Amino acid sequence: MATIGDICVSASINLLSALAFLLAFGILRLQPFNDRVYFPKWYLKGIRGSPTGSNAVKKFVNLDFATYIRFLNWMPAALHIQEPELIDHAGLDSTVYIRIYLLGVKIFAPITLLAFMVLVPVNWFGKTLEAPGAKDLTFSSIDKISISNIPFGSDRFWAHIVMSYVFSSWTCYSLYKEYGIIAEMRLRFLAAERRRPDQFTVLVRNVPTDPDESVSEHIEHFFCVNHPDHYLMHQVVYNANKLASIAAKKKKLINWHVYYQNKYERNPSKRPTIRTGFLGFLGNKVDAIDHYTAIIDNLSKQEAQERENIINNPTAVIPAAFVSFKTRWAAAVCAQTQQTSNPTIWLTEWAPEPRDVFWENLAIPYFDLNMRRLLMTVSLFFLTFCFMIPIALVQSLANIEAIEKVLPFLKPIIEKSSIKSVIQGFLPGLALKIFLIMLPKILMTMSKMEGFTSLSGLDRRSASKYYLFVLVNVFLGSVITGTAFQQLQQFISQPSTEFTKTVGSTIPMKATFFITYIMIDGWAGIAAEILRLSPLITFHMKNTFLVKTEQDRQNAMDPGSLEFATSEPRIQLYFMLGHVYAPVTPFLLPFIVVFFAFAYMIFRHQIINVYAQQYESGGAFWPDVHGRVVMGLIISQILLMGLLTTRGTDKSTLVLIAQPILTFWFHRYCKGRFESAFVKFPLEEAMVKDTLERAVEPNLNLRIYLQDAYVHPVFKGDDFEKPAIIDDEEGNPLIQTTRASRQDSRPESDSETGSC
Amino acid sequence: MATIGDICVSASINLLSALAFLLAFGILRLQPFNDRVYFPKWYLKGIRGSPTGSNAVKKFVNLDFATYIRFLNWMPAALHIQEPELIDHAGLDSTVYIRIYLLGVKIFAPITLLAFMVLVPVNWFGKTLEAPGAKDLTFSSIDKISISNIPFGSDRFWAHIVMSYVFSSWTCYSLYKEYGIIAEMRLRFLAAERRRPDQFTVLVRNVPTDPDESVSEHIEHFFCVNHPDHYLMHQVVYNANKLASIAAKKKKLINWHVYYQNKYERNPSKRPTIRTGFLGFLGNKVDAIDHYTAIIDNLSKQEAQERENIINNPTAVIPAAFVSFKTRWAAAVCAQTQQTSNPTIWLTEWAPEPRDVFWENLAIPYFDLNMRRLLMTVSLFFLTFCFMIPIALVQSLANIEAIEKVLPFLKPIIEKSSIKSVIQGFLPGLALKIFLIMLPKILMTMSKMEGFTSLSGLDRRSASKYYLFVLVNVFLGSVITGTAFQQLQQFISQPSTEFTKTVGSTIPMKATFFITYIMIDGWAGIAAEILRLSPLITFHMKNTFLVKTEQDRQNAMDPGSLEFATSEPRIQLYFMLGHVYAPVTPFLLPFIVVFFAFAYMIFRHQIINVYAQQYESGGAFWPDVHGRVVMGLIISQILLMGLLTTRGTDKSTLVLIAQPILTFWFHRYCKGRFESAFVKFPLEEAMVKDTLERAVEPNLNLRIYLQDAYVHPVFKGDDFEKPAIIDDEEGNPLIQTTRASRQDSRPESDSETGSC
Repeated sequence: MATIGDICVSASINLLSALAFLLAFGILRLQPFNDRVYFPKWYLKGIRGSPTGSNAVKKFVNLDFATYIRFLNWMPAALHIQEPELIDHAGLDSTVYIRIYLLGVKIFAPITLLAFMVLVPVNWFGKTLEAPGAKDLTFSSIDKISISNIPFGSDRFWAHIVMSYVFSSWTCYSLYKEYGIIAEMRLRFLAAERRRPDQFTVLVRNVPTDPDESVSEHIEHFFCVNHPDHYLMHQVVYNANKLASIAAKKKKLINWHVYYQNKYERNPSKRPTIRTGFLGFLGNKVDAIDHYTAIIDNLSKQEAQERENIINNPTAVIPAAFVSFKTRWAAAVCAQTQQTSNPTIWLTEWAPEPRDVFWENLAIPYFDLNMRRLLMTVSLFFLTFCFMIPIALVQSLANIEAIEKVLPFLKPIIEKSSIKSVIQGFLPGLALKIFLIMLPKILMTMSKMEGFTSLSGLDRRSASKYYLFVLVNVFLGSVITGTAFQQLQQFISQPSTEFTKTVGSTIPMKATFFITYIMIDGWAGIAAEILRLSPLITFHMKNTFLVKTEQDRQNAMDPGSLEFATSEPRIQLYFMLGHVYAPVTPFLLPFIVVFFAFAYMIFRHQIINVYAQQYESGGAFWPDVHGRVVMGLIISQILLMGLLTTRGTDKSTLVLIAQPILTFWFHRYCKGRFESAFVKFPLEEAMVKDTLERAVEPNLNLRIYLQDAYVHPVFKGDDFEKPAIIDDEEGNPLIQTTRASRQDSRPESDSETGSC
Repeated sequence: MATIGDICVSASINLLSALAFLLAFGILRLQPFNDRVYFPKWYLKGIRGSPTGSNAVKKFVNLDFATYIRFLNWMPAALHIQEPELIDHAGLDSTVYIRIYLLGVKIFAPITLLAFMVLVPVNWFGKTLEAPGAKDLTFSSIDKISISNIPFGSDRFWAHIVMSYVFSSWTCYSLYKEYGIIAEMRLRFLAAERRRPDQFTVLVRNVPTDPDESVSEHIEHFFCVNHPDHYLMHQVVYNANKLASIAAKKKKLINWHVYYQNKYERNPSKRPTIRTGFLGFLGNKVDAIDHYTAIIDNLSKQEAQERENIINNPTAVIPAAFVSFKTRWAAAVCAQTQQTSNPTIWLTEWAPEPRDVFWENLAIPYFDLNMRRLLMTVSLFFLTFCFMIPIALVQSLANIEAIEKVLPFLKPIIEKSSIKSVIQGFLPGLALKIFLIMLPKILMTMSKMEGFTSLSGLDRRSASKYYLFVLVNVFLGSVITGTAFQQLQQFISQPSTEFTKTVGSTIPMKATFFITYIMIDGWAGIAAEILRLSPLITFHMKNTFLVKTEQDRQNAMDPGSLEFATSEPRIQLYFMLGHVYAPVTPFLLPFIVVFFAFAYMIFRHQIINVYAQQYESGGAFWPDVHGRVVMGLIISQILLMGLLTTRGTDKSTLVLIAQPILTFWFHRYCKGRFESAFVKFPLEEAMVKDTLERAVEPNLNLRIYLQDAYVHPVFKGDDFEKPAIIDDEEGNPLIQTTRASRQDSRPESDSETGSC
């Protein structure tokens, strides 16, 4: 077991590497030619432009050495900006996200203090480990201040039980307050928001087919009948998945075209050539620029044809639509109510904001959706518990003998001892490493197959999947040796209490491991985040080979964004570690607190200067975050119960069993109290906004405002040829939005949009 | 173990007693003086009146002996009436309720056939029990056609596995179809319903207090602002719990008064006297009629004062109200949407119909509601698993020594050996018996404390509690010996798979016990139901002592009603037994089928002729019924898994494990597909009804129609003095319901009702 000394060595290594990252960042960020890597957000906002000074060197390197001395001055700058400004600048999602770290500090700073004041003395004077009669256990100073130092069946355990209740109460109190604050922030944010298309719009799915009417007509008639005073217009959704993929392919090829063009311009003596075969290695040599020009032309034709297809083919319209109403009140009503007696058709939900729509999933029928959920749940189970099986298979195939068999010509090379040892040491780990890198993508693909319709929903869903994986394979996997599948077998074949006992009693022994983990993954990992090594390299590569215009340079920036789906579950691991170790090994807590505080600062800097948010969901993920913190808390309470029963305090179970029940009840209460603020749009708020708007802008033409709001992104942009049927009403911009004036006119059956 | 012969004896005893009950019923129902016991529903509907013939004897006894011969002819009569008529006559709740029995027949008749065709031959030729090398097991013919006859590890078990899948599929298919039919029936019922107050009304709870306005004003202003075009009026709720209890007390005393009055009239020579002390045994002798007259007068005064109190005291208005809208559409919208950003205030839900309101629970605040749920959940857990502990305590107190200690003067009587043996044999069982009789009342009280606002909701909630109790204490309690608490301990201390194995392997041995149980509780019990012994006696008692007028006789009838809260969970037990034994001991299945068919006929007769429904929820309980049948099915699948693993077919687990997962998924799918039809009122249906009504009755004054719909029942009746503030608008019956015409007039602040 590691001693304090070992921990100190590890801590200093990790601190040094974290400092090195920070130093590197401090220097790199001051160089003007890195400006777009470290401050992309300001460029995207149009506040910052490329340096235009006359001195060519100054354009690239910062020679003002005075600034280097203050290389850490980004820290106070990051903390200086106030929250309302932050919401305005970075959006509510980002602001709420960094509050998770702040919550960590809020919860664990007092717990750490209390644990060091109460539990450390109690443990220290337990003196089991130092007792002359103690079995020859190897122990370290950390164990002396942990629960391991308390004698079997001692009454001192009551201190831990009481403190466990205190910690849980404090956590619940903090969570409750935070939930209230976030809900308040969200409501204020929604109330203060300027007019947005999604406030008036409802996403309608599973429109039933009607033999006599087109989808568009059917939708129009249905809402004219059932929301007669409120219906304004609708926008049908085209199945543009193929078109989108052609457009994406074309964009990639254009990049290559530009690359070869640039190459040729720099060296006009020789036209660049490529091979057309496998990965550019085989096949005929052709002129690269001509080749790409030809392919791009071809794709452009295909694209135009597909565009034509979509517009003229009625089957390209999928049975879903964005239906807009005259008021926010009516949209809120439609989104929250059931339309017909068959709850599987005419499904209405509050529309995601246009950037947030995941277009591919809008057409999935109800039954398929259920089937997909089932399949994905089963897959997730197997992925979580059995992912080691295929990897072990790949590993066994990827050994030297197998390679020699398949590719015998490599034999003489492989047999060399130096290469052999590299392969043997490297290959088995490789499959696992690749899997872990791919995992978020796999989980995201699974979430996409489940049929969510918004990017934010996909992110949230992937995050829960990832959390399960982290919980089972990182946390439990580290505590109990063996794969998740073996754990599962163990869990099934033992009495249910035995499992918690096994895990609980192993917990104190793993403290040093987790301390090291926190320092490597938490401290150094977060410091590496701010360095942005991969975007830095990518940007300079692109800048060298592809960028010609200012616009290109803009596009070459990769601001990145908060990867909610992967980073949030990892924060949750720290919450859980904190809760699990708070009553057991308080020594771990300061490391957690430092992690949260440090990460808060780093990410605050990142959302201010770097990340560009892909969408704005208004902090809709908070209920998930809250739920997972509570779940971690409950797990920690159960494990403590398991641990204490192995320490001769069987009666303690009776006292501790109420804790998870009360915590679960607390979760339910919070859910009822706050969750709907994240799911529904209350009518009162809608009415207030409507009334205000009517007073301020009585002549607003909402129809024009909403006209193109929910058009598939491939139809947008410079080369946007709007579908003909949308054009129909373009010439008539002053369509009145009151019902009375149009009551006589029949709705035009060929019109895409129109009130009734 | 019981042989076929034993079963036959038991069957014939039970059949005979069932027949005896039917015979007694056949004879008693033909006597005119029992007419009000066996046909109260027709009297309540006003179709049947008291016999008025001149022959005094014929008025009481049926002398037409020809009718006795056809004493079973009520059976075809009960089956003859068509379902639409039945819904019209007995309501949808009753009709849907008896369909549960029909569903039992539909599910188990084909399963029985199939099981006898496939599993019985497979089991019969298993020949384990007859094999010469077989251990000297005692076995019966029943065991020979059960799964016990299959050798250990035989491949024949695949027949059971396959059949289990077939049975489950058939059950799910039947359940799915039935759910669809019931949902369809419900929607048709709601659509065909004539105008009812609850269609326009929403129950609003947790109205926040406002320092400047009364509750009534606050409600009015809130809905005028947030539902401006739709709000019609509202009715506040008075806290009349005390008044209701006074009225109930008074009614009881009036009964006694009438009793003594009658006694005196029959025997005018002697005025009846009573003692005023404990239970009429101690205290002064007073004139009974004068005594009751005095008390009743006193109570009347109290009642009047309380009535005055309620009307004049603003704190008697509780923060809840019934808010009515101009259209069904608007009511549906308000019930389904969230009103404010704080989801714990202004809670709206579709109002129960006036008869269905549970008035006492309307004022509970949100936090209390949560707290009560938690407490009741914990209580239910203890009630289910630990109910034996207090009963054992009472039993130990109620033994002879204890009685002698407390009441020493009884010692000489008790010590007599004959009485002693009675007490010793009788007392210990008495506490348990009393508890079991009280149980439904206890569960109902618990449900009331949870704060449900409708009687139907209370019934549904009590039913789920009772189901849990039956499942744990009747089913598991019979399979495993020992109390529920011991089972729980066993469950916790064993591996989770071990418990299912233990239960699963015990299942085949308990088949004969459950067959007997089905015959006693199912066959004979149901036959006793039709005899209505307790209402028969009560009616004749009342008729003799209390009845003076025709109205009194009407009141003396006790039609009873379907006790959903207790009888539905007991049906579920039969479903579960059927599912558990279908692949194990097919011999049990015919008994189940006979039970379902017989009960279907009996209850069809009862709902036609006897029961008077207390409320009409439109079959809202079906999702619960469906869920519990599915739960029984899943339990049976898990137990089969446990059973088969003890029979040397470990691999079968892999095949069988998919079954509960698929079944659970089926449940989720059905929930999504149908449940909302039982919870929400779709806008399309509301709009259709509104439109139709507007066309048929353009001049309907909805305000007058709804005026008194939701008045507390104690304010209703002959002596109803309407609170003054309600009277306010009575003189003005033609208040227009369109908004435009009243837009200028300010809402009267002292008016109870008024549109804005």
